Amino acid sequence: MKNAALGFFDSGVGGLTVVRAVQDLLPGEDVIYLGDTARLPYGSKSPETIRQFADEDVGFLLSKGVKAIVVACNTATAHALPSLQERYRIPIMGVILPGVEAALADPDTERIGIIATRGTIGSHVYQHALATRKTGLMIHGVATPLLVPLIEENWISEEVTKDILRKYLKPLIDKGIDTLMLACTHYPLLVPVLEEILPADVRLVDSASTCAAHLKKMLGEMDLLNVKNDGGKLEIHLTDLSEQFEELAKRFLRKSPGKVRRAVLVPG
Amino acid sequence: MKNAALGFFDSGVGGLTVVRAVQDLLPGEDVIYLGDTARLPYGSKSPETIRQFADEDVGFLLSKGVKAIVVACNTATAHALPSLQERYRIPIMGVILPGVEAALADPDTERIGIIATRGTIGSHVYQHALATRKTGLMIHGVATPLLVPLIEENWISEEVTKDILRKYLKPLIDKGIDTLMLACTHYPLLVPVLEEILPADVRLVDSASTCAAHLKKMLGEMDLLNVKNDGGKLEIHLTDLSEQFEELAKRFLRKSPGKVRRAVLVPG
Repeated sequence: MKNAALGFFDSGVGGLTVVRAVQDLLPGEDVIYLGDTARLPYGSKSPETIRQFADEDVGFLLSKGVKAIVVACNTATAHALPSLQERYRIPIMGVILPGVEAALADPDTERIGIIATRGTIGSHVYQHALATRKTGLMIHGVATPLLVPLIEENWISEEVTKDILRKYLKPLIDKGIDTLMLACTHYPLLVPVLEEILPADVRLVDSASTCAAHLKKMLGEMDLLNVKNDGGKLEIHLTDLSEQFEELAKRFLRKSPGKVRRAVLVPG
Repeated sequence: MKNAALGFFDSGVGGLTVVRAVQDLLPGEDVIYLGDTARLPYGSKSPETIRQFADEDVGFLLSKGVKAIVVACNTATAHALPSLQERYRIPIMGVILPGVEAALADPDTERIGIIATRGTIGSHVYQHALATRKTGLMIHGVATPLLVPLIEENWISEEVTKDILRKYLKPLIDKGIDTLMLACTHYPLLVPVLEEILPADVRLVDSASTCAAHLKKMLGEMDLLNVKNDGGKLEIHLTDLSEQFEELAKRFLRKSPGKVRRAVLVPG
């Protein structure tokens, strides 16, 4: 069982930032990644629809014999993780709890800003998870739906991107946040620009590295860590193939994604 | 048959700009509109996937007994219209040919710019349709994937939107275009901003009003016009419902969309 692969799914290729962080921290693990590119994005869709899609995504990964599943997508974690954990026996974790715990690990954290898609912010799942773990927090979420298309357009260093970030972040900076949670798997690519724009004392917490650390702890506790030394394999399956996705996958992974396969999901 | 409704489909609610233009020009027609919001956008997906989705969309409209179908989506027209016209006997028209004919109606047209999603530009369908109808044209297409999210964010009058439009349009203005084709059903909402940014002698050709004029002609020739005087009904079906879609629908229609129903498509 230790030697089985880890399964990851996301609406698209953004979840590969989580895979990259996991490969850095757990180099012996094999990874099977499913991106539901035919139906992306999940961020603007209803909870009911997202739960149905997530169920089909998990079904695909289970058919590949994975030992554990990471929901590498904030929207799917927000809307579907509890029902997935109820339905399946295999360990399934999301990207939200690791981020929340990392944000609260610093006892001085008091004023937290959250940026994410409309779906994640509207679900209030971050706000709720933070507020139930620590009282007296000031939490302020801002939906930032233009950031994913800007990243995908590869306009990260453009002046308009900085203008848009300044516009989105102004209410958070005005409120004096000490921590900014990047609650979308695309956003780690914005870290250099965010560091330029934000006051120096604002701490950034992203979904990718926090999720990798949490996964390592969980696998260790369950005695499921793959400790082989010959390097993990990565297998990417997408429900729709296009050059753009392969190009994006390369930017998120910071290396070639290798051969990408077309996945066919079974309706749930 | 004249009294049957017209069927429209799009990946989302953008095609409602076409419905609005049709309601202005053909007030007696009833309209059944299908937006495949669960799987939007089509613009970044592969031709094969888009053909499958379009086939399912047409199946839904046929089950409602429509007399003719408008593919109110540039990407679906680009990739799926020929196969749909081959497969079904009912009249099916798209949004591309009407725009192309309108652009070429002015005999002085020589230098044409096209803005659209990555999928539409990459399909070269506009470039091809223009070039085969008139020789000696200079045609220049630019993929402008940020415009749909900017419109959906309702940032139409914001300075960053003007900056992004200036950046996208600069190569076209530098090339001295005399005509700009707005090859996406969302873009009619940008007309006031485009008129502000573009040189005064650049003519704008949009997908909505040109499609309505073409539809009127086609229905007249086939003796399928509904000439009743009591006003057409509009029935909107979406594969995923959310407040955001209803709010967007209202902006595209410039009036309340009424009750929106959830559509379930049958896999093709």
